[in-house]
Amino acid sequence: MSLTADNWPIAAALLQFPAVKRDGTVVQDADAAEWLATFREVKDAGFDAVDLTDSWVRAGDLSSARLDELKAAFTEAGLTAPSLSAIRRSVIDAQHGDENLAYSHRTLEAAAQLGQTVVSFGLHQALTPAQKEALWFWTVPGHQDPDPAEHPEVWNAAVTRFRELGKHAEELGLLVSLEMYEDTYLGTGASSARLAEEIGLQNVGINADVGNLVRLHRPIEDYWDIFEAVLPWTNYWHVKGYQRDENAATGLYTSIPTAMESGLINYREVFKLALEHGFQGVIAAESYGGDGLSVSAANQAYLRRQVLPKRDGYALGVSNVTQRASRVS
Amino acid sequence: MSLTADNWPIAAALLQFPAVKRDGTVVQDADAAEWLATFREVKDAGFDAVDLTDSWVRAGDLSSARLDELKAAFTEAGLTAPSLSAIRRSVIDAQHGDENLAYSHRTLEAAAQLGQTVVSFGLHQALTPAQKEALWFWTVPGHQDPDPAEHPEVWNAAVTRFRELGKHAEELGLLVSLEMYEDTYLGTGASSARLAEEIGLQNVGINADVGNLVRLHRPIEDYWDIFEAVLPWTNYWHVKGYQRDENAATGLYTSIPTAMESGLINYREVFKLALEHGFQGVIAAESYGGDGLSVSAANQAYLRRQVLPKRDGYALGVSNVTQRASRVS
Amino acid sequence: MSLTADNWPIAAALLQFPAVKRDGTVVQDADAAEWLATFREVKDAGFDAVDLTDSWVRAGDLSSARLDELKAAFTEAGLTAPSLSAIRRSVIDAQHGDENLAYSHRTLEAAAQLGQTVVSFGLHQALTPAQKEALWFWTVPGHQDPDPAEHPEVWNAAVTRFRELGKHAEELGLLVSLEMYEDTYLGTGASSARLAEEIGLQNVGINADVGNLVRLHRPIEDYWDIFEAVLPWTNYWHVKGYQRDENAATGLYTSIPTAMESGLINYREVFKLALEHGFQGVIAAESYGGDGLSVSAANQAYLRRQVLPKRDGYALGVSNVTQRASRVS
Repeated sequence: MSLTADNWPIAAALLQFPAVKRDGTVVQDADAAEWLATFREVKDAGFDAVDLTDSWVRAGDLSSARLDELKAAFTEAGLTAPSLSAIRRSVIDAQHGDENLAYSHRTLEAAAQLGQTVVSFGLHQALTPAQKEALWFWTVPGHQDPDPAEHPEVWNAAVTRFRELGKHAEELGLLVSLEMYEDTYLGTGASSARLAEEIGLQNVGINADVGNLVRLHRPIEDYWDIFEAVLPWTNYWHVKGYQRDENAATGLYTSIPTAMESGLINYREVFKLALEHGFQGVIAAESYGGDGLSVSAANQAYLRRQVLPKRDGYALGVSNVTQRASRVS
Repeated sequence: MSLTADNWPIAAALLQFPAVKRDGTVVQDADAAEWLATFREVKDAGFDAVDLTDSWVRAGDLSSARLDELKAAFTEAGLTAPSLSAIRRSVIDAQHGDENLAYSHRTLEAAAQLGQTVVSFGLHQALTPAQKEALWFWTVPGHQDPDPAEHPEVWNAAVTRFRELGKHAEELGLLVSLEMYEDTYLGTGASSARLAEEIGLQNVGINADVGNLVRLHRPIEDYWDIFEAVLPWTNYWHVKGYQRDENAATGLYTSIPTAMESGLINYREVFKLALEHGFQGVIAAESYGGDGLSVSAANQAYLRRQVLPKRDGYALGVSNVTQRASRVS
Repeated sequence: MSLTADNWPIAAALLQFPAVKRDGTVVQDADAAEWLATFREVKDAGFDAVDLTDSWVRAGDLSSARLDELKAAFTEAGLTAPSLSAIRRSVIDAQHGDENLAYSHRTLEAAAQLGQTVVSFGLHQALTPAQKEALWFWTVPGHQDPDPAEHPEVWNAAVTRFRELGKHAEELGLLVSLEMYEDTYLGTGASSARLAEEIGLQNVGINADVGNLVRLHRPIEDYWDIFEAVLPWTNYWHVKGYQRDENAATGLYTSIPTAMESGLINYREVFKLALEHGFQGVIAAESYGGDGLSVSAANQAYLRRQVLPKRDGYALGVSNVTQRASRVS
């Protein structure tokens, strides 16, 4: 039975919820009541599912007892938590790669205990000071993965380490998804697809977060070409909207976070392509800037109203990777 | 009886539906089931009416039997098709003018067979290669009609040929509407009104597509002035929204497609002016970029909720041209 | 009993309604039926309350009998009018300060007769010719209040005159709120808070119109810092949304009016901070550009759906100034 607009899992990302609250509360170490309050806010905003974005709480650094509390909290709020996104923890970070790899393994174990379906990793690294100063960090160049032709050992380390994580995830019944992000090996359609192919595991695919790419203040790859390359490998999906304007004659590049319905990417058409490639994975609705949770809720509503198939029984292609929207019981 | 929010015909433009599908299907030659699928998508998006935009299917190039199939398809989908928009088929194109004129006559005949109300023509010509390369074609200069003072013969050809089309349309019980577009004789309020006046037929008016003008990356005519000039002649209306920012000191010009409610043009006030000038014509909801069909649906909802008169019996002015929102039976 | 999403007064600003209509009607002198029509339009757009923005009608310049007509009109339309915003009437205007002060006193008396709760004044002065020429006036520099260190007498005049207005308002049972606006003594968080503190009256606070500041085409103060400074003093609130993009490397600054939900300011979080500082005042929903009334209505709907507390009994801090959302009877 294929997923439809009514039951497709769409999780709220927690990008707007900081690790340290204004009153100094470190959310990681806070009482579970603190977590429950956030989950209730997510539920009230209109969600039935949440992405455990680790910029909020690092499940991988919680004890087993605390993980039970976390699970109890989102369950009590009426949410499921099908996905976990680990952010800026590149396993090929020159300085922190080993540490990030160990953290990623712990995160998989935590996700398994929480009964999750998919864990998303990426190759983007910590924001630079200049990026942190900017209104929007993506307007300032950040870390770049080295050219794989000149540094095959770095590319190979990415393949090897993601494969290692993938095998661990497989033992735990989890999918791994790799988030697209500019200037990394997951920064173009072709490179992302090649990485997934070289890893070569059924449970490791791509998180087609093309929103990360169309917001850049520089010439960009055609978004349709990117999706054609990565949707055959996509097993999880961060979706978000950006408006964009360009003018080659004046050198203008501008992009602004917006609801997906109003953005550059035609998600209506892109989802048709996704279904042709067999996509049946968890979706995480994001939005940067302003009241991202409310915009994420509007994004969910848009997907269910205008984009996702209304009725079961539609034509569905075959993906290169395993598709799973909820945990195998 | 005047039109109200409940029954004003608002047709979905088909700008987002290409003539050739990704799988290579030429929609013009496709089985009627292909057309039905598109019409169903338009209906599902929230529309009861569709504009037969000829960038999708050229009704004027279909046989009579195929036109019957087309009509059966939109009827089966639960749609009416009050309008047809012929795009980039200028009858004064130096190279293709004769061909475009012949095509326009065929299009009128097709529209009559389909039971339509209004056919929209324009003077914009094919996009240049540089326009096709751009993210948004309107950021790059395109074709310009020659100065009518220096080339009165070109202006006169426009008048004569549109008059010829108008007379043909009159015989067929159709209205003709002329779409505003920059750098053509329909590119300013004054020139558009003058063209309509010189044509001098009750059934030939203006398609007040001012969205085409407010998106330009250069100084623009005040939109209110444009509407004051053309609304007395308006008999059909492509509506769409753009946000816009300018800064003379820095040379900034930017414009981004958006839902009409959020855009630069105050459609609430502009429609009051339209009613003062007796407008009672078909509206076509458009939107460029991204999921234009969903944004067009939001545009329709906005018009019905906030802009169009809720109750019959409002004051209505007298138009310079015939107003008709549905076919005279 | 604290205010909740259901009963928090949210008034529509009348920025889109001009003092002189297209047909030449001077609204100030028009028959009350003219006022009723506008109030009905506000009601139809979705509001139960209206801000008597004086760019439409100057209540302070109406006779007592006409004020009764005004009150009868908004009452008949089903609206309350909890607030009045006097715009560009600086009491320290070098040329018109005395006149503006007298007008402000008359405005307070009018507001009292109308049964209002709060009157908003500001220090912004008339738009310059260059500002009036611009698409958006905030892209062009306007009046600047003199440096208070060099011209303490001007700063002191602001304190003294606002205190005088505050005392008059107190006698009338009204609150006074001072609207933030760039390049005035109400142009930064610190300066606004200092002004309120020096005035030193319980019934004089700040109108935290930070939208006025985040739209500027130049570097801006972090909006969160501004709110932290002024929310302890806030007793009335003009809310509106702007999207914003910046790029230091290219010198890009752009801002576009938009619905609050999609804008730069995270009103969800800012309102939490407002409640921590005891805010329980009237809100006025604004929007510049295009169909501002419809966007204001969307802003109201967003606040009630996503931002304002759903249930009574939430934690509420203590404000530095009196909080009142409706007239003390």
